[in-house]
Amino acid sequence: MTDAIRRHDPLVKGFASDNYAGVHPEILQALALANEGHQISYGEDVYTEALQEVFRGHFGPLAQAWPVFNGTGANVVALRAMTAPWEAVVCAESAHIHTDEGGAPERSAGLKLLTVATPDGKLTPELVDTQAWGFGDEHRAQPRVVSITQATELGTLYTPDEVRAICEHAHQLGMLVHLDGARAANAAAALGVPLRAFTTDAGVDVLSFGGTKAGLMFGEAIVVLNPDAVRGLRYLRKSAMQLASKMRFVSVQFEALLAGDLWLRNARNANAMARRLADAVREIPGVEVPRPVQANAVFAVLPAEVTQRLQKRFRFYTWNEAAGEVRWMTAFDTTEADVDAFAAAVAEEMSAQA
Amino acid sequence: MTDAIRRHDPLVKGFASDNYAGVHPEILQALALANEGHQISYGEDVYTEALQEVFRGHFGPLAQAWPVFNGTGANVVALRAMTAPWEAVVCAESAHIHTDEGGAPERSAGLKLLTVATPDGKLTPELVDTQAWGFGDEHRAQPRVVSITQATELGTLYTPDEVRAICEHAHQLGMLVHLDGARAANAAAALGVPLRAFTTDAGVDVLSFGGTKAGLMFGEAIVVLNPDAVRGLRYLRKSAMQLASKMRFVSVQFEALLAGDLWLRNARNANAMARRLADAVREIPGVEVPRPVQANAVFAVLPAEVTQRLQKRFRFYTWNEAAGEVRWMTAFDTTEADVDAFAAAVAEEMSAQA
Amino acid sequence: MTDAIRRHDPLVKGFASDNYAGVHPEILQALALANEGHQISYGEDVYTEALQEVFRGHFGPLAQAWPVFNGTGANVVALRAMTAPWEAVVCAESAHIHTDEGGAPERSAGLKLLTVATPDGKLTPELVDTQAWGFGDEHRAQPRVVSITQATELGTLYTPDEVRAICEHAHQLGMLVHLDGARAANAAAALGVPLRAFTTDAGVDVLSFGGTKAGLMFGEAIVVLNPDAVRGLRYLRKSAMQLASKMRFVSVQFEALLAGDLWLRNARNANAMARRLADAVREIPGVEVPRPVQANAVFAVLPAEVTQRLQKRFRFYTWNEAAGEVRWMTAFDTTEADVDAFAAAVAEEMSAQA
Amino acid sequence: MTDAIRRHDPLVKGFASDNYAGVHPEILQALALANEGHQISYGEDVYTEALQEVFRGHFGPLAQAWPVFNGTGANVVALRAMTAPWEAVVCAESAHIHTDEGGAPERSAGLKLLTVATPDGKLTPELVDTQAWGFGDEHRAQPRVVSITQATELGTLYTPDEVRAICEHAHQLGMLVHLDGARAANAAAALGVPLRAFTTDAGVDVLSFGGTKAGLMFGEAIVVLNPDAVRGLRYLRKSAMQLASKMRFVSVQFEALLAGDLWLRNARNANAMARRLADAVREIPGVEVPRPVQANAVFAVLPAEVTQRLQKRFRFYTWNEAAGEVRWMTAFDTTEADVDAFAAAVAEEMSAQA
Repeated sequence: MTDAIRRHDPLVKGFASDNYAGVHPEILQALALANEGHQISYGEDVYTEALQEVFRGHFGPLAQAWPVFNGTGANVVALRAMTAPWEAVVCAESAHIHTDEGGAPERSAGLKLLTVATPDGKLTPELVDTQAWGFGDEHRAQPRVVSITQATELGTLYTPDEVRAICEHAHQLGMLVHLDGARAANAAAALGVPLRAFTTDAGVDVLSFGGTKAGLMFGEAIVVLNPDAVRGLRYLRKSAMQLASKMRFVSVQFEALLAGDLWLRNARNANAMARRLADAVREIPGVEVPRPVQANAVFAVLPAEVTQRLQKRFRFYTWNEAAGEVRWMTAFDTTEADVDAFAAAVAEEMSAQA
Repeated sequence: MTDAIRRHDPLVKGFASDNYAGVHPEILQALALANEGHQISYGEDVYTEALQEVFRGHFGPLAQAWPVFNGTGANVVALRAMTAPWEAVVCAESAHIHTDEGGAPERSAGLKLLTVATPDGKLTPELVDTQAWGFGDEHRAQPRVVSITQATELGTLYTPDEVRAICEHAHQLGMLVHLDGARAANAAAALGVPLRAFTTDAGVDVLSFGGTKAGLMFGEAIVVLNPDAVRGLRYLRKSAMQLASKMRFVSVQFEALLAGDLWLRNARNANAMARRLADAVREIPGVEVPRPVQANAVFAVLPAEVTQRLQKRFRFYTWNEAAGEVRWMTAFDTTEADVDAFAAAVAEEMSAQA
Repeated sequence: MTDAIRRHDPLVKGFASDNYAGVHPEILQALALANEGHQISYGEDVYTEALQEVFRGHFGPLAQAWPVFNGTGANVVALRAMTAPWEAVVCAESAHIHTDEGGAPERSAGLKLLTVATPDGKLTPELVDTQAWGFGDEHRAQPRVVSITQATELGTLYTPDEVRAICEHAHQLGMLVHLDGARAANAAAALGVPLRAFTTDAGVDVLSFGGTKAGLMFGEAIVVLNPDAVRGLRYLRKSAMQLASKMRFVSVQFEALLAGDLWLRNARNANAMARRLADAVREIPGVEVPRPVQANAVFAVLPAEVTQRLQKRFRFYTWNEAAGEVRWMTAFDTTEADVDAFAAAVAEEMSAQA
Repeated sequence: MTDAIRRHDPLVKGFASDNYAGVHPEILQALALANEGHQISYGEDVYTEALQEVFRGHFGPLAQAWPVFNGTGANVVALRAMTAPWEAVVCAESAHIHTDEGGAPERSAGLKLLTVATPDGKLTPELVDTQAWGFGDEHRAQPRVVSITQATELGTLYTPDEVRAICEHAHQLGMLVHLDGARAANAAAALGVPLRAFTTDAGVDVLSFGGTKAGLMFGEAIVVLNPDAVRGLRYLRKSAMQLASKMRFVSVQFEALLAGDLWLRNARNANAMARRLADAVREIPGVEVPRPVQANAVFAVLPAEVTQRLQKRFRFYTWNEAAGEVRWMTAFDTTEADVDAFAAAVAEEMSAQA
């Protein structure tokens, strides 16, 4: 019997972030399967070896998966492996690597980010061009990688063709493409395409594939789709403190997620719950849903007083205080009842306001 | 039902490293306890909050625990929080931060290490003095922290008095003391003292407390014993990619380890198995055990051919090829039968040699 | 007799950059004065000591001058001394530190820059606010310094009141202000105020004071106006490779520049020549001068063919290819004859075009 | 007339460091020659172009010279251009890059140094082997460069054959060789060989060639001897803040030094004065000269009281306080009279002691 005790109410769920959720039960089972006995540490275990085949099944025969601890780690190690120390990364101003990683790319890897303002979190070849210049000029950090996010931080999606256009343009410029896929599963589910449609098949060179928000306890994978796009990844993962000793427990989670359709079931549920929530709150007079709901994020504009009262009942984040915009995320474990209860609360607080 | 499958033989164990072991069953139970429902991410969950009290119970009322992913992460973040960007760390040449972290302190944090050759992996005030000089000279990286390891990488132990002597000396010089406690539990068990005897009570300022080698799936904790010794730890943990989103699953493991005596049971078993192994192989003609066996490491000198044959049967590491020295580690799950079978194999191969 | 030979035509001057100019003769004299005999290296010489009084005369009794090699060095060392490793710098998108230093702030110091689009290269309190938020949130690099440039990279000027408003706002937010004064002399001359009017007296904490573009052979000075705003500058200058061994030769140049009015004579000449050039080309049909000419930069819009032909006769840089905008800089040694000859060439090429 | 004034006595010289000296008169003349008129900045000037031929004359047809500001800059940029971010540099414990650069390699470039204790500041193939191992192991920073110093920090010299043996060994291991030649001129003069004898011809890949200690005002050159040994040097020089805008004034100094025999005259004088000093003090009863005097450094062991009294009359550095060892350096401008006066002072203080 463990000395730990359950300290929380397992029935309470919210809409603050998909990483407030726990672990999918099938993942927990997988962790127990991989336990007992000894396995070589640092990635030479049989689970990590077997995982390669699982990733190749999704991303094609050249794909290599490098498990790491978290999304910031996946992004920073991937980008560092794709760049020389004098090169730079073009990304949207809203990119997670720019806004939410505490400066990790700059502090831990010396990376310079060249940011582009976008209306919807999405780059285009034309927007890339606003930063992809000055090649050969030592006064300018040399643009080398375009980093895009799918689904974006604003809940929007790139079509496979949109990704392909960026990749073709980047490659013509001698640049590479990285895709931050913390929510790649949600994107594939929403687009109704395989994961490779907007990655391998669209020309993406390296992918950060998200596990934590997809139902894992922890773990992300750097997936190299173009082996020529990276140098020294093995060493960079270690010196970036992202090499797990008992790696079997990262790898077996990914196997459980990706060997069957758990990734798709989880993503479909989250996406469907976001649509349900958006549909419900759009019906509430005074609530605006200002952005398309394409994956598992719903943005809404509410009166400030309503937001404040609602946040006392449910934790969620204000996205843009000036605009009165809030963000709600759904997760693999969000239920219809959760959504309906939350939408009812929104309606209540809006009524109280009127 | 998970799609993952068991791919390994749970009965096979070895002596290569204590991180080849899996997860203690009580830890797995704790992980399940903390699952389901939503919890605030990034450390604002109830498990991480409750963990503070657990650590204070071991390390005194000022202790603050900052869960991170792995040992390299704990060491680098702790040392960075203890130093300004022009300061340096004095450590033994054999220190893990110098030899086994892929240059993470230098690459990820710009830290300069000032190393000292030691006979047994242990620093002393006199050895510290060989590097703790040049204060105020801008041409010299400014010595600021002494970092010691307990139990050391060579399987040796500092007594509480030895640690205290280093701390007093360092503090007199205006320096701080960091203790890399990846195997602190083994040390406490071997010394027969509480964890605080050679940390808080001896004057250590900041501790990296090891969980993975003590039976966790993953997770270490930076334990701040002297709050004045660190700056910006919250931010540095994030930018060093060591902030877990679903942190409840790190924290609950530590609760299970430390709230009762699991840490001690695990460590005592590993230590006892190391002694049993050392006792057994000392009896085998031709095998030398050149270092004291004080925690859970056994070093042995064998003929090269014996090592080669034995490594085909059991994986373990050569420590010093020229000297014919190998290292064997025991773990929380090593049994007497494991030890006896391994010692018998050593005896067999030695006989075959003669 | 030296073995070096004169390889260039000393009569040829251009309008590409103020750092194409050489050294003012009074500076060369000063270098010879400081020569012969021995002086303590690394800044303990009598010239560097005397220089402190010279800088205090301009910037007030708290000012401390730290000579360095170049402008990028001054900016990076200053900003690093003003920030902890988790803090960030708010600056204009057009700031030299962002666009022209090859990523030095990020690569050499791990600094994160939070950039703001501006119409004229100038920040305002309102523009600062677009990036100065998220204090206490470890996911966001913590805004700590506002860095402004005077004169700006676009040839515009802040009034002392405009600088003061930014400083007051920054200080209220708990932030500091850095001023990149590569052309601070030009700004003071143009505004008709002492150097301290828009620095010390306006609340600036740390200044990069430009020497090279003001007529020195090499050398910039970090001028600390608020001693509480910096930490470890002595050490950071060394580890950033900006500590000159024979520092007397940097310091004596600054003494020659600043002890009398050489700085002002040089700056006034450059500014007057820019006005003369702007006045001349404004008269040429088809040439547009789209930005105010407030210091020693003139921006002009020309037909692409004219630019190409003109660049075969005089070297200068295209600022914005799409807009047909070019930049012309004047220097301390630009003469009326130089300007008139150049303006005549512009007129010729415009006529040839028509 | 410059506003600067002469503040020092040009007749006072000492023995503290060769960088206490000023500028050789022929170098000052060269600086004046390169002045006036405009030249393209950042290295596209005619002096920097012409300098390439000068360096090729000394170092062979593949040599490329990259002027930088100082020796720390030359070393750090050279080493960074020779290594990927996961690679490391093997050097002597006494190497300037390890002991006297304020941690610049680690802080500014993330470089890990693997140091080796040596009796005389010199590496050998056998000593290199103590650190050149662990290739392919991600836990170990990957050894990539051997960095040696000629003349060493201890005043000793490598013969060309000794350098060749290190280079051949390093190349067999897949490693490269960097030579810190802050005093390469002294070494060539002492050995009576051309500069290329222990660099290009011995297999050195990249050289930091010292100008400042050889009589320049400021300036060092990274000399690439094997173009395949470096990547991105152009960009790294800029982002390391080592790109001079008015580079003609660095380059013309090197032309004056190297086009004729000024480098050799200066070095020969310094070396001869060191021998003269050593010979003189060896005659003084009680003074020991414990190291060979092969270039321009003299180490001596004196009673502590003598050192203290002598340091009140002449500035110089204590090398090893415990051993009573001091270091005296001679420079290009040290005269026989300077040496004789200093030796007489040593004799006086020793007599006073007896």
